[in-house]
Amino acid sequence: MFESAEIGHSIDKEAYDAEVPALREALLEAQYELKQQARFPVIVLINGIEGAGKGETVKLLNEWMDPRMIDVLTFDQQTDEELARPPAWRYWRALPPKGRMGVFFGNWYSQMLQGRVHGVFKDAVLDQAITGAERLEEMLCDEGALIIKFWFHLSKKQMKARLKSLKDDPLHSWKISPLDWQQSETYDRFVRFGERVLRRTSRDYAPWHVIEGVDPNYRSLAVGRILLESLQAALDNSPKGKHRGNVAPLGRSIDQRSLLGALDMTLRLDKSDYQEQLVTEQARLAGLLRDKRMRRHALVAVFEGNDAAGKGGAIRRVAAALDPRQYRIVPIAAPTEEERAQPYLWRFWRHIPARGKFTIFDRSWYGRVLVERVEGFCSPADWMRAYSEINDFEEQLANAGTVVVKFWLAIDQQTQLERFEEREQIPFKRYKITEDDWRNRDKWDDYVQAVGDMVDRTSTEIAPWTLVEANDKRWARVKVLRTINQALEAAFAKDKK
Amino acid sequence: MFESAEIGHSIDKEAYDAEVPALREALLEAQYELKQQARFPVIVLINGIEGAGKGETVKLLNEWMDPRMIDVLTFDQQTDEELARPPAWRYWRALPPKGRMGVFFGNWYSQMLQGRVHGVFKDAVLDQAITGAERLEEMLCDEGALIIKFWFHLSKKQMKARLKSLKDDPLHSWKISPLDWQQSETYDRFVRFGERVLRRTSRDYAPWHVIEGVDPNYRSLAVGRILLESLQAALDNSPKGKHRGNVAPLGRSIDQRSLLGALDMTLRLDKSDYQEQLVTEQARLAGLLRDKRMRRHALVAVFEGNDAAGKGGAIRRVAAALDPRQYRIVPIAAPTEEERAQPYLWRFWRHIPARGKFTIFDRSWYGRVLVERVEGFCSPADWMRAYSEINDFEEQLANAGTVVVKFWLAIDQQTQLERFEEREQIPFKRYKITEDDWRNRDKWDDYVQAVGDMVDRTSTEIAPWTLVEANDKRWARVKVLRTINQALEAAFAKDKK
Repeated sequence: MFESAEIGHSIDKEAYDAEVPALREALLEAQYELKQQARFPVIVLINGIEGAGKGETVKLLNEWMDPRMIDVLTFDQQTDEELARPPAWRYWRALPPKGRMGVFFGNWYSQMLQGRVHGVFKDAVLDQAITGAERLEEMLCDEGALIIKFWFHLSKKQMKARLKSLKDDPLHSWKISPLDWQQSETYDRFVRFGERVLRRTSRDYAPWHVIEGVDPNYRSLAVGRILLESLQAALDNSPKGKHRGNVAPLGRSIDQRSLLGALDMTLRLDKSDYQEQLVTEQARLAGLLRDKRMRRHALVAVFEGNDAAGKGGAIRRVAAALDPRQYRIVPIAAPTEEERAQPYLWRFWRHIPARGKFTIFDRSWYGRVLVERVEGFCSPADWMRAYSEINDFEEQLANAGTVVVKFWLAIDQQTQLERFEEREQIPFKRYKITEDDWRNRDKWDDYVQAVGDMVDRTSTEIAPWTLVEANDKRWARVKVLRTINQALEAAFAKDKK
Repeated sequence: MFESAEIGHSIDKEAYDAEVPALREALLEAQYELKQQARFPVIVLINGIEGAGKGETVKLLNEWMDPRMIDVLTFDQQTDEELARPPAWRYWRALPPKGRMGVFFGNWYSQMLQGRVHGVFKDAVLDQAITGAERLEEMLCDEGALIIKFWFHLSKKQMKARLKSLKDDPLHSWKISPLDWQQSETYDRFVRFGERVLRRTSRDYAPWHVIEGVDPNYRSLAVGRILLESLQAALDNSPKGKHRGNVAPLGRSIDQRSLLGALDMTLRLDKSDYQEQLVTEQARLAGLLRDKRMRRHALVAVFEGNDAAGKGGAIRRVAAALDPRQYRIVPIAAPTEEERAQPYLWRFWRHIPARGKFTIFDRSWYGRVLVERVEGFCSPADWMRAYSEINDFEEQLANAGTVVVKFWLAIDQQTQLERFEEREQIPFKRYKITEDDWRNRDKWDDYVQAVGDMVDRTSTEIAPWTLVEANDKRWARVKVLRTINQALEAAFAKDKK
């Protein structure tokens, strides 16, 4: 969920200076249009890691836009008046009216996270708070509101560095309260519960946007752009079509950095290392699946990746080690007639393994947010809601003891071209390459974007994505096997506690 | 929530026999159309009180319709295969495909209710299960499914009588398992948690229908009609407009009985009894509001009713007893400009009392499901979702310690006419009667329907409706005061525990 926000996004000064004037002008224009139409309010929620630039960004937005039309609201300790009423009262009385923008700096999410992080209550009560937030936001959107949710993120290392630099800087040292430092210690809990909150509350009508907070230029532009695009989309929406509120678009990457781009595609294994490591990992997997602790778990492995990235070969190396009665490979192609007559997740539910068993999905439910999105086989509303539906699905698997590992096998465009050409040369591989494959290549950038969004929105603690550098098939196969083994061992280790 | 299902609905044999043939034919036709279109599946959920005719009704539906297109599914003990997978797997594999109908007899609701009633878990875990059910149904509806949820109800007295009669009948005594009898003891818990479940999961896209189960003719016709109307509405829906699934309509009353109709409008108090009781109740209220236990509570009283039913007079008698600093009367008329720029609940949130205080709403948030519904000021989707939004709102009030009492002051048409004419005669009352009042009279039946739905969907344990027989103003005023006093005393008594 936070992967894309830990890869060192940055925008240099020149690019920043070049872009800001147009962005500011467009934001101001959108703001006046918002006031003019007076058709819906805008609610901006600011959350995230301490030191990730929340305050600075809000300050900047006020400089960029017309501050007379923005209400910045902070919610710290409840006042006496607030304590005498239901908790939501403080938010209701601060709601911006139609045509205005309210920036909620500290809000219902901060409150539930603080409570959970500091152990005031457990997951079940956190979930009640999450449901309350969902119902509030759903109602606000049904009433026309545009809700934009930002999570400012830093990796643990980045956060520590940031706090240290602020502390040493006499101009900023006032910003560091004891609580901030304490947060450095509770970073892991904050991120863990934050992920749960984001996973559950990122809905099609009010998705979260995770912003890497290290580079001020990047985070400012990213926030400005998302704000602008969301505003413009909502302003263009016909008043009649306001059903379920205004869907905020997912933001496009604004620097040249992406999760896939951040992979080191030169990673490789030579033949002898490969042979040795492959055999070791295969034996380890066979042993783990025979382990009696496996009776409490099932295993699901999802393989997605570029065409010709070597999914088939990797799957064969996984299967090679195993007793065929213990695993099953489910290749996902076009749905059957029976499957088309059901909700899209049905064809995957029918194949999920019983405890003790292992199912390998060669392509999967992620088709909805990959090929179906890119090819327009379903509407944006359909693939937007799919992220949370998929998270719900995988959470149910995880709750039942299923270990879920998900692989994206990534190759670069040059490698793909070579493999395509090779396939066309070799008669017994020719069946593997079709017109579709060449057509997909034209949509390379769309897929990069779709994969980035997919990982950002569905890589969770309970079912993380593993991006596999697959230019070298040997490297990829060993990494896949090792990842599965580590995931199983981690699950077994948790059982003991 | 169950009020309408405890008033002794019944249909005599003659009326029943006259109606059934046409209903059966229309149901069969709808069923074939469903198969023909093969555009969406129908999922019918059957829940409710033991002995309320669930099984008989399902049997009957199979006789009335083409059983080849209906799958009746029961979910009792989980099988080994089911236990080895996530709990929802058993439901997924039973989902009817597009064009078919699945009757889920025992389902996710039975499971969570059993668990909560028998104390396997507490409210927080029940709420997690409720959220899971909501998300499942939301997803199914987004995928096009039509979900129809029936709750078969009996009052406690009715259930005891029913179980006894079954026991004495040798043909039916096999139906009485020890569990059923045990349910007679746990009836209160079952109804209490059932109400929580219905309140939270009755959403615009999949509302609950509560069916009184005493009279077989009534319950059969009621279920058949709702099924038919829901099917027809979904079949007529254009395929494009399937957003958020197919909204099932609320059912109309099919016998001549309604909640309002069941009131004894002859109830009255003579002058001396009135004087005495009024003074007693006023003193009691003044005392309760001064009680130090009031510091932990707030009080909200909602007054709705027919035009000229005497809301103003009743409110004055309540207020008369009190220190003006302690209460506030909020008259609700057309919203101000500022209020129109906010979600419709905002104008009520701004007036909710702090702990220790008392707010009287002269008309209220129920305008949305009364006048706005009847006059078409908002769309059906808007007022349909309002029921759950209002329940959420009142639950927040209750959780904060606010005691919520809600009155519908009911008069009959003749009494209203007399009061209207009287008002036109008396100069100082003439301002009270307008063209609107006469116009509203024409919509009497629409209001009866709207009030019935409102009470069925928003009368909850945490904020029950009180229907007040108001043909006699004295009776009405004393009943209002006494109800407020009882509610406060009940809340104080709960504190002690």
